[in-house]
Amino acid sequence: MRPTRAIPMRAHLIVLWTLLILSFSVHAQSNPLSSWNDGSAKNAIVEFVQTTTTEGNANFVPPEERIATFDQDGTLWVEHPMYSQVMYCLERVPALVKAKPELAKTPPFSSVLELLHGDRAAKKKLNMKDLEVIAVATLAGMSVETFNAEVKKWLAEAKDPRWKRPYAELTYLPMQEVLQYLRDNGYKTYIVTGGEQDFVRVYAEQVYGIPPEQVVGTAGATKFGYGKDGKPVLTKEPKLVLNDNGPGKAEGIHLMIGRRPHAAFGNSTGDREMLEYTKAGHGARLAMILLHDDAKREYAYGPARGLPNTKVGTFTEALYDEAIKQGWVVISMKNDWNRIFSFEP
Amino acid sequence: MRPTRAIPMRAHLIVLWTLLILSFSVHAQSNPLSSWNDGSAKNAIVEFVQTTTTEGNANFVPPEERIATFDQDGTLWVEHPMYSQVMYCLERVPALVKAKPELAKTPPFSSVLELLHGDRAAKKKLNMKDLEVIAVATLAGMSVETFNAEVKKWLAEAKDPRWKRPYAELTYLPMQEVLQYLRDNGYKTYIVTGGEQDFVRVYAEQVYGIPPEQVVGTAGATKFGYGKDGKPVLTKEPKLVLNDNGPGKAEGIHLMIGRRPHAAFGNSTGDREMLEYTKAGHGARLAMILLHDDAKREYAYGPARGLPNTKVGTFTEALYDEAIKQGWVVISMKNDWNRIFSFEP
Repeated sequence: MRPTRAIPMRAHLIVLWTLLILSFSVHAQSNPLSSWNDGSAKNAIVEFVQTTTTEGNANFVPPEERIATFDQDGTLWVEHPMYSQVMYCLERVPALVKAKPELAKTPPFSSVLELLHGDRAAKKKLNMKDLEVIAVATLAGMSVETFNAEVKKWLAEAKDPRWKRPYAELTYLPMQEVLQYLRDNGYKTYIVTGGEQDFVRVYAEQVYGIPPEQVVGTAGATKFGYGKDGKPVLTKEPKLVLNDNGPGKAEGIHLMIGRRPHAAFGNSTGDREMLEYTKAGHGARLAMILLHDDAKREYAYGPARGLPNTKVGTFTEALYDEAIKQGWVVISMKNDWNRIFSFEP
Repeated sequence: MRPTRAIPMRAHLIVLWTLLILSFSVHAQSNPLSSWNDGSAKNAIVEFVQTTTTEGNANFVPPEERIATFDQDGTLWVEHPMYSQVMYCLERVPALVKAKPELAKTPPFSSVLELLHGDRAAKKKLNMKDLEVIAVATLAGMSVETFNAEVKKWLAEAKDPRWKRPYAELTYLPMQEVLQYLRDNGYKTYIVTGGEQDFVRVYAEQVYGIPPEQVVGTAGATKFGYGKDGKPVLTKEPKLVLNDNGPGKAEGIHLMIGRRPHAAFGNSTGDREMLEYTKAGHGARLAMILLHDDAKREYAYGPARGLPNTKVGTFTEALYDEAIKQGWVVISMKNDWNRIFSFEP
């Protein structure tokens, strides 16, 4: 009799396992946004997901069309006092100067050396054009493989000046929860960043669970050629293919994804067109914008609603007005988030 | 006693269902390449998939890295006597001339009108540069939405001159089987085409099961702006962002996917760099190239191994030699495929 009884026994186990797994997933789903305080921002996310994923609902979105786009700097992780990618480029300057000593006295490289040696005033000497010059000088001519390896190495060593932690740890826990919550509901999550595409792709999978092919960013050209061993090599060129900022974010979404997102998240004027483009689609669309109003736990800058102006992350009064008018949801870091980082309670 | 007995009964059913489902999927998987004759080409595909998806195998590829890229024209569907997209542009010329009558006597538009009126000799008057001029004139300035709607309409009506069927039906059944077989084994399938990205994206999901975000093609810029109703509009610009042909295919893969494919399929010199780039990766890589050597069931052109030369799809002697040297697998349409189209036995 044993063999015939063995089947129901195993079947019992299968049923038990199934129930156990089901109860676990129900539990995991029961509070997917636990770092969010109850309020209009959290509600907007939950309602959007329920509306667009419930079959029969007038605003139901078929799984293949579920696209959500996220700005990175200042939306998914800290952007102050400087974009991590700018830090990466600046910290490559000494090696560049070692190879070409004449650069030591040439601006903007000389200013970078002063800044790296602790002269904070030197930061004021650097404008956007200078940063472009530095980016081109430190990135172009490198093979894609070398670049990836260098960024990986830098990320493993570099630390944010305030929290003294690797940049990868400075992601916002509430936004990580939103990414996961959307994915659990069939959404494909994309990063759409003004930062360099190749740079962000190096760590996006590990840090956000977002694969390289779902990272859209400012992209330079590469050039196909052959190395000394005769093998194909892609080399980074000093030529811009996509300026993924402002209107470029909507254009970049069309180029790289080819579908209009159903949800978009940003934090500055550079995200305006992405939010407008998203919200203008038919049916339920979610546009959210993060206000950095928490000087204690993170930073307060804007200059929306009287927050201090800074060079990075410009959430202006005009953008605030547009958000209200267009039905975008403003996330107050101070009021809507009960936790900010996973390493803090 | 009934309630306690009810569980094993249901459990029995679950076990039976599971076995039934398993046996169905085993059956479905048992001959996924039924349009392929047994031989080195079919073997190469099956061995590649088994090697890269068997855990513990030295060449195992984690699911997230399983990327396969396919050229379209001449690899996934018929490219003779003319790329369908060229046909689309040519057939838009009369409407263009109606709007701007002065074009009726201006080359290359005058030659297109002659060609459309049945003068086959006019085809010889058109070179690649002319086709570019026509493409820009017929595509630029259009909103992305209008373009998509126009292409959809054209595809529903246009027919291939030989088979008198919509272009969407002229896909190769054996390649459709490869796409499905790879996807069933966790591969993300991409189209990497010299054709226009926006054009192919309109039908790729319906025709190949490939979503727009997995179509990489020659791409023009778009410009973000606002329509008369104040809503955001993306307009097609006469400016090239990516020339996705030859070296541009490897560059396009880096730009749009950011990972090196593990498998690539092509049929002409325009696919050479994509195949080289794919094959140069570590571990097991599959590079396959389709030889059109079946004048009866499709076409025979090359000019590899003495096949006649034509303007489209140049599988040259040099490419054949490189294929042999590099370990690419040549697919002979005549010998490796027992069926070509789903509408034929």
